[in-house]
Amino acid sequence: MKVKDIKTRFGARLRQLRKEKELSQEQLMMATGIHRTYISEVERGIRNISLLNIEKIAKALEVDIRDLFDFRSS
Amino acid sequence: MKVKDIKTRFGARLRQLRKEKELSQEQLMMATGIHRTYISEVERGIRNISLLNIEKIAKALEVDIRDLFDFRSS
Repeated sequence: MKVKDIKTRFGARLRQLRKEKELSQEQLMMATGIHRTYISEVERGIRNISLLNIEKIAKALEVDIRDLFDFRSS
Repeated sequence: MKVKDIKTRFGARLRQLRKEKELSQEQLMMATGIHRTYISEVERGIRNISLLNIEKIAKALEVDIRDLFDFRSS
């Protein structure tokens, strides 16, 4: 099995955590100030998200940043 | 004590791990293809590094990405 690239793995993990927290992309947008389209693209592995936005998302999800990189769970 | 911003904390942790691995910025540049100036700026908390470069650095340091976000150790 080919290992998926980091953008895809990060996006899948973000989507998983967002759903666990029962937040819509719209709600995550409101909590972070990051546009829903951008969030959707990160979740689909299209965007090369940066550190500042990673932190905003972790705060909005109330998780440690490391949880966003815990790919064993996804 | 004011919590330092994420770029500063990430940069300090990167520097710490790089030194633990006994790599120079020059060697990390050669292992990642990321210019030494850029690495230096990330370490000083100036750069908003992106996911792809975070992964390159983790691979070069032979650490899990989550180790780069383990700020308890720094």
